[in-house]
Amino acid sequence: MPLTDEQLDNVCRKFKYRITTRNEILLHAGEVCPHMFFVNKGVLRVFLLDEQGKEFTRFLVFEGRFGTAFPSFILQEPSLASVQSIEASEILYIPHKDLMELIDTIPGWEHAYRVGLERDYIASIKRIESLIALSAKQRYDQLMANNPEMIRRLPAKIIADYLGITQETLSRLRAKN
Amino acid sequence: MPLTDEQLDNVCRKFKYRITTRNEILLHAGEVCPHMFFVNKGVLRVFLLDEQGKEFTRFLVFEGRFGTAFPSFILQEPSLASVQSIEASEILYIPHKDLMELIDTIPGWEHAYRVGLERDYIASIKRIESLIALSAKQRYDQLMANNPEMIRRLPAKIIADYLGITQETLSRLRAKN
Repeated sequence: MPLTDEQLDNVCRKFKYRITTRNEILLHAGEVCPHMFFVNKGVLRVFLLDEQGKEFTRFLVFEGRFGTAFPSFILQEPSLASVQSIEASEILYIPHKDLMELIDTIPGWEHAYRVGLERDYIASIKRIESLIALSAKQRYDQLMANNPEMIRRLPAKIIADYLGITQETLSRLRAKN
Repeated sequence: MPLTDEQLDNVCRKFKYRITTRNEILLHAGEVCPHMFFVNKGVLRVFLLDEQGKEFTRFLVFEGRFGTAFPSFILQEPSLASVQSIEASEILYIPHKDLMELIDTIPGWEHAYRVGLERDYIASIKRIESLIALSAKQRYDQLMANNPEMIRRLPAKIIADYLGITQETLSRLRAKN
């Protein structure tokens, strides 16, 4: 979508840039998520923590993708999930109010945002399908087919947690491949 | 959003109306989903079927809500899921091309569609959270709190399947409440 210089300048000024450290928490559960994040380098994790301190990985946000604790960000309610940068990462982030203003005022942004939403919603449906209908092996094979880089790059603990399987099962599946 | 008579007429002509029978399949897995459905009365179920004939309920679409086999409908690819009307239902439905045309041409429709998408995406995230982090009892309690009508109305088999628990566990949870 073609932007005037003024519009482009307006967009750029709303995004802030920073470098995160490994395992840094960008949002704690219980806070209202103020930002939509864009991962320029690195990877973010959106996860739940239960009362016993057990972690459950809800989503991973890879390079070139937007991500946030979505329900909290959209509803501006306290978040059930926390957001963490698993690696030292380069991120851009924009406050809720500013993103909504861009969507409402810059031609084409509502459309682009909507298409991104459809894609993310489809990804979440596929995650539900894998959780309800696939075996541990099928989940692992699906991840290998769709995101082999993730398996090479992330700690076994997080991969096992994302797949909803134990680390022992993950080791067994890896040994077989 | 205010519509001219011509616009309103154009919208109405694109939706078709029909009555479905109990357990009627509206989309078979493997087909490209041609329609977005609106449930005026009744309830639709979007479900997966594995090679052993076991069913897995992905979503339920209640009265006053839009629903479809979303990945197939948006990507216009063969669907993994089937769509079924669990009860005799009154539905409106609109072809993919016509819905996209309304979204692109009627003022306010892209915005309304986007807000609906955000809501559905949030519902799917909450479903993922419940699948990865909640116990059978917590899932049942959550459903009782958010959708008690569903528990009264649907067959135990479908509720158990939606919660990802066995019918025996469901009976036990019901007896305790």
